[in-house]
Amino acid sequence: MSALIERIRAAVGTAGLITAPDELAPYATDWRKRFFGRPLAVVRPASTAEVAQVVRACAEARTGVVPQGGNTGLCGAATPDASGSQIVLNLSRMNRVRAVDVRNNTMTAEAGCVLASLQKAAEDAGRLLPLSLAAEGSCEIGGNLSTNAGGTAVLRYGNARELVLGLEVVLPSGEIWDGLRGLRKDNTGYDLKQLFIGAEGTLGVITAAVLKLFPLPRSRATAVAALQSPEKALVLLERALDACGERLTGFELFSDFCLSLVLKHFRDAAAPFPRRFPYYGLMELSDTRPGEGAGTLVESVLEAALEDKTVIDAAIAQSDAQAQAFWKLREFVSEAQAHEGPNIKHDVSIPISGIAEFIAATDAELLRAYPGIRMVTFGHLGDGNLHYNVSPPDGGVPEAFMRELGAVNRIVHDAVARFGGSISAEHGLGQLKRGEILRYKSAIEIELMRSIKRTLDPHGIMNPGKVL
Amino acid sequence: MSALIERIRAAVGTAGLITAPDELAPYATDWRKRFFGRPLAVVRPASTAEVAQVVRACAEARTGVVPQGGNTGLCGAATPDASGSQIVLNLSRMNRVRAVDVRNNTMTAEAGCVLASLQKAAEDAGRLLPLSLAAEGSCEIGGNLSTNAGGTAVLRYGNARELVLGLEVVLPSGEIWDGLRGLRKDNTGYDLKQLFIGAEGTLGVITAAVLKLFPLPRSRATAVAALQSPEKALVLLERALDACGERLTGFELFSDFCLSLVLKHFRDAAAPFPRRFPYYGLMELSDTRPGEGAGTLVESVLEAALEDKTVIDAAIAQSDAQAQAFWKLREFVSEAQAHEGPNIKHDVSIPISGIAEFIAATDAELLRAYPGIRMVTFGHLGDGNLHYNVSPPDGGVPEAFMRELGAVNRIVHDAVARFGGSISAEHGLGQLKRGEILRYKSAIEIELMRSIKRTLDPHGIMNPGKVL
Repeated sequence: MSALIERIRAAVGTAGLITAPDELAPYATDWRKRFFGRPLAVVRPASTAEVAQVVRACAEARTGVVPQGGNTGLCGAATPDASGSQIVLNLSRMNRVRAVDVRNNTMTAEAGCVLASLQKAAEDAGRLLPLSLAAEGSCEIGGNLSTNAGGTAVLRYGNARELVLGLEVVLPSGEIWDGLRGLRKDNTGYDLKQLFIGAEGTLGVITAAVLKLFPLPRSRATAVAALQSPEKALVLLERALDACGERLTGFELFSDFCLSLVLKHFRDAAAPFPRRFPYYGLMELSDTRPGEGAGTLVESVLEAALEDKTVIDAAIAQSDAQAQAFWKLREFVSEAQAHEGPNIKHDVSIPISGIAEFIAATDAELLRAYPGIRMVTFGHLGDGNLHYNVSPPDGGVPEAFMRELGAVNRIVHDAVARFGGSISAEHGLGQLKRGEILRYKSAIEIELMRSIKRTLDPHGIMNPGKVL
Repeated sequence: MSALIERIRAAVGTAGLITAPDELAPYATDWRKRFFGRPLAVVRPASTAEVAQVVRACAEARTGVVPQGGNTGLCGAATPDASGSQIVLNLSRMNRVRAVDVRNNTMTAEAGCVLASLQKAAEDAGRLLPLSLAAEGSCEIGGNLSTNAGGTAVLRYGNARELVLGLEVVLPSGEIWDGLRGLRKDNTGYDLKQLFIGAEGTLGVITAAVLKLFPLPRSRATAVAALQSPEKALVLLERALDACGERLTGFELFSDFCLSLVLKHFRDAAAPFPRRFPYYGLMELSDTRPGEGAGTLVESVLEAALEDKTVIDAAIAQSDAQAQAFWKLREFVSEAQAHEGPNIKHDVSIPISGIAEFIAATDAELLRAYPGIRMVTFGHLGDGNLHYNVSPPDGGVPEAFMRELGAVNRIVHDAVARFGGSISAEHGLGQLKRGEILRYKSAIEIELMRSIKRTLDPHGIMNPGKVL
């Protein structure tokens, strides 16, 4: 193996190569600390040409390459296996914004750019990069694209996939595919970039991308609605879309148990209403027009919904601070649940029309199997995406419940399949759900995926053991 | 070959099979009458299962299959070759809307549904299917997706690709891939549907799709601005986007020569202003809110642009009839140019920021090479998409000019490549640009496309001689 290491060192220099065991550690484990790998080395190239040389060397040595960005993924896609034979290819040093074309509404950024820094660069140019998610302060755009990240503005702007116009990719052979086009329309053959987006590094290494930018919103309105049930949330969502169109940037749902966890574990958090209600819907509108338009609009939607009892109570944020406070009630759910101890997570999507029925049916089935368990139901309702998590019964033994993980997954994922949904809405498969997905995809689909993998990566060096 | 025909007859019945030479004719030629093929037979299956049986039979007989929808394509992708050995697989009998899920904002439609009928079905359900193009009265959704159609609302809603959530495809083996998911988020492996969208039938036959629907607009505003140059059009576009955001549904450009052709060949057409100007920009805003908001907004954008001379004059439509009259000035350009005699067409895209410079440089280069020729410059400026057509000099011999087609293409397409553009923005490659594209794509990209083609269609039966 040392011949490979020497070849990599010649390509990336000493600054780009880590082999000391204690320095490898941060790159060898995922963010949730569920997967522990042992890499042969961590390679940190500074340019596309260096990435190409490293991948070519690994291809010739038949050595596995695990691409890694900010290492914030939730499914272990960026963690090497424990064999000590795989290279972690960390892209963080490739962090240049190559170009911002204001009039074309595009930005060309390298894979290692931290998402928040790209949001900032766009704003400095008077534009919006709408991709936004909890990890934005440390996740990197290459990882966002490789996992087709979702986040809080998908309802209006789409997933990461929809924000990409062009890609630069180092192929498993070490060749560079320059597909960095900044075009809204290009019908000259197969849309190759789509293969690499969401492929979790199994088909090549994304080294740079051309991203779409949007006009900056000049006004916002944020509101929380108190709801009797998910069904009422769907009615409100439908009306809000109908009335607000693209102004509706986000529509989130969380249950009262979610709220109670946030209130328990975050002292600064405040309940939005003096009373408590079964569910809450968080709506955000934004508009390129300044002024009160968005506020007036959300008010009229909520007034009508209060009148006919779709909504039990409603609060519109009166300041940016209050808007942020409302968002925290939703955004802190995951962390609050973690403070509560171990739990079983799901990241599912369902056709939006079926969500209320899905929640009712799955809640009932789980409670029959595990009396007393507590559902932590929240998510991006506007996208049909639920983080449908399950905590053990109050006072129960968490370890005993966690041993049921497979059985709980089975109940939830089988229900998802019955409702025509997906068992990974926005987090990907990685190594976490690689086996699970085989139960839910047709043999034809799995074979199509495998045949593409074999074609692009005949030696199987790109992120082995992930996705497929 | 008669064994194959008998097998197909057994699959689709007499109603689904055409072999009489005079009945074959309408299916053997493209809409522009530039390609003349001779099919072995035209097969018109009525179900996905029938399509699968036909494709399987053709795969076993190694017989080429040419998928065809409404046969309105502009690059000959749906026209068989002249060998008499290929099957035209016409999908027009598969024209059922399988489902409209109002709350999920989706519609599941078979490939043979005429686009206008789907727009109508969406509207009947209180929703908008935003795909809209000149051929919508006869083009079919399977063809729209296979060519990733563009049209007049791409600025706001994206190309056909962006409107698809799921697909059903008969693979070149005759197997059926059921990817008819109605999910906004699904990160469970490679996004296979993207392969078939825009592949012009070379990787399989799209038999049905789940399409996104949107809230119905309740108000519109349409305006024409008189402009000194394409550069001024870009300034206006940037301001309109900044002020109007997603309300800006379309932004079209056409030159005064385009207007003169429309006025000459369409008696009903009226010039938008008493005077004439070098260029015109057509803007359309739409909004889910009823009332005057869109009108007020376009007025304020135009007032500011008049004040600082970005715009020389402006007219806002005062009625639906006037809005339609404005649109006709843009939409009739192509037909008006056809009345004028033969011309050389281009369907190109450029990063929007480079369009004014592209037009100036390419106009100059063409006029140096062919003094007196007349540029018919129009298109979807908001998408960076120009239909940059060239008519022979006034009084010149059209046939002589048309012999220069290859040389004119070369000047225009080389300029497109210098500006980082695409030689087929929205019409595809088909058989028309299959050779031309080899000059402009890298060897790596062509080989990636070919390797995918070989993998999915190892016997090369799907639409042979198209795209690749």
